[in-house]
This record gives sequence, C-alpha cells and structure tokens, in this order.
Amino acid sequence: MFRNDGFRVLDRQECLRLLAKVPVGRVVYTRQALPAVLPVNFSLDTDSSVLLRTSAGSGLVRAIDGVVVAFEADDFDPATRSGWSVVVTGRATVVTHPAEHERLSRTGPHSWVVTHDDVFVRIDSEMVTGREITGTRGTD
Amino acid sequence: MFRNDGFRVLDRQECLRLLAKVPVGRVVYTRQALPAVLPVNFSLDTDSSVLLRTSAGSGLVRAIDGVVVAFEADDFDPATRSGWSVVVTGRATVVTHPAEHERLSRTGPHSWVVTHDDVFVRIDSEMVTGREITGTRGTD
Repeated sequence: MFRNDGFRVLDRQECLRLLAKVPVGRVVYTRQALPAVLPVNFSLDTDSSVLLRTSAGSGLVRAIDGVVVAFEADDFDPATRSGWSVVVTGRATVVTHPAEHERLSRTGPHSWVVTHDDVFVRIDSEMVTGREITGTRGTD
Repeated sequence: MFRNDGFRVLDRQECLRLLAKVPVGRVVYTRQALPAVLPVNFSLDTDSSVLLRTSAGSGLVRAIDGVVVAFEADDFDPATRSGWSVVVTGRATVVTHPAEHERLSRTGPHSWVVTHDDVFVRIDSEMVTGREITGTRGTD
C-alpha cells in the first residue's frame, strides 16, 4: 500500500525472519504516564514470542509485567537510505513457571549487562507489523 | 549510578553529541491507546530540539502534534556488547510559522521517503537522558 512512497509492507513471516537477524530491539511502554523506551538484547522463542532477560527488581519489570507493550527492531543503511523496521505488539509477562524458567536459562537470551535474580520476560507476538524502505528519495 | 552493572549514565551534552552522530531515531507515542513506535530520520536544530519531516496528512502528525513523546536513538556493537542510547522526552509540535518552515526547508532534515505537503515536527528536548553500556558481560 505504500509502494509509491518507497515503502513495502512486510508480512508476518518476513517480519519474524528479520527480527531473528538482529540482537537488539527496543521495548516501548508507559512509565509514570509518559512514553518510555529501552533498548535491550533479545531472542525469539519457538512460538515467535520475544524474550528478554533482566533483573527481577528492575523498573522495566515493574512497568511492563502484565501490560501490552510494543517491541521494535530495525536495520537501516544511511548510504542507500534503505532498511526495515518491525514492531511486535503484545502482552509482556514475567515467566514464572520453574520448568519454563529453567528451559530459558539454557536456551534464552543472555543480558548484555549484569543482572540480579534474573527473570525472563516474554512479549507475545499478537500483532507483528513491519515495513521496508527501499531507498526512494524524498522531496529534496 | 549503574557503573557496577556495566552502565554509565550520560549527561545532557554527551547525549546531544551522540544524537548528532546518527541519522535515524524512533518516535515513541500512543496510538489508539496502544504503545507505538516509528523509526524516522531526523536532525537536531540549533536549540537542540529534534526535527522530523513528514507528510502533513500522516498518521504520525495526527497522533503526536501537541503531545509529549519520546524520541530514542542508539548505536550498539554486538561484537563487544557495548554502545549507547539516548532518549529525548518532550512535546512534539508541527512547525506552523512560515519563516520557520522556510528556514527548515533549507536547513532541516530531508525525509528518506516520499512525502506530501511536507511539514516539520519539532520535539522539544525538555528531558534528555542517556546511558552507555561498556561491554560488561551478563550472568551467562
């Protein structure tokens, strides 16, 4: 629908394939009634949900557990003005089941920073949207 | 305050210096009561506000004109697990003054995609926060 503007809308499978190629995305949520965003490294689980690993007592966990958030990842090349972005929108929940926590401790993401009393946060991929910018120049 | 966790908090001047080094950031806002995020190219104005250029009739303009939004930019190196992120939080407003619009048409950002009836959106840099990840490994 955006083809004439230099956009191409990506389908869910294309979005998930691209998401798997980058290590860092951004959690988008609300904190004290203001829009908030935090970059985090992540991985995709077998059911295509987004997995983060953080400290149990972190402000992020307090803000997003049980709440619908957006998770964005992208990759752009300034030289060609092209790239893609994908947004997953869904409920974030801390993984509480011991067997599931144990599985993710082996297979899930490792935080890039020191964490304490690690928890995994799962963001369900209820809505997955994405678009590709194909390098069409603007009006300059 | 996060030094032991591999974080370093950046001051406002460091944040603005880093922001000026990357062409793309992400507008974080609310759309139909859900968290939303859109990558856009941008530039910094002389007063350190963030400038975007988009179509007057775009959904982004309808969603953010007059509203407090967050604007995030970052740069990470997966090989060293290091990098930085900066978040500007402030009111977004469409530039309506003709002389100001004319000045920004010369000096402001050029959209990477085709736009119609271009407008500039200014995000005031009321609150500027940032942090650097210095490559400390996690608990894996």
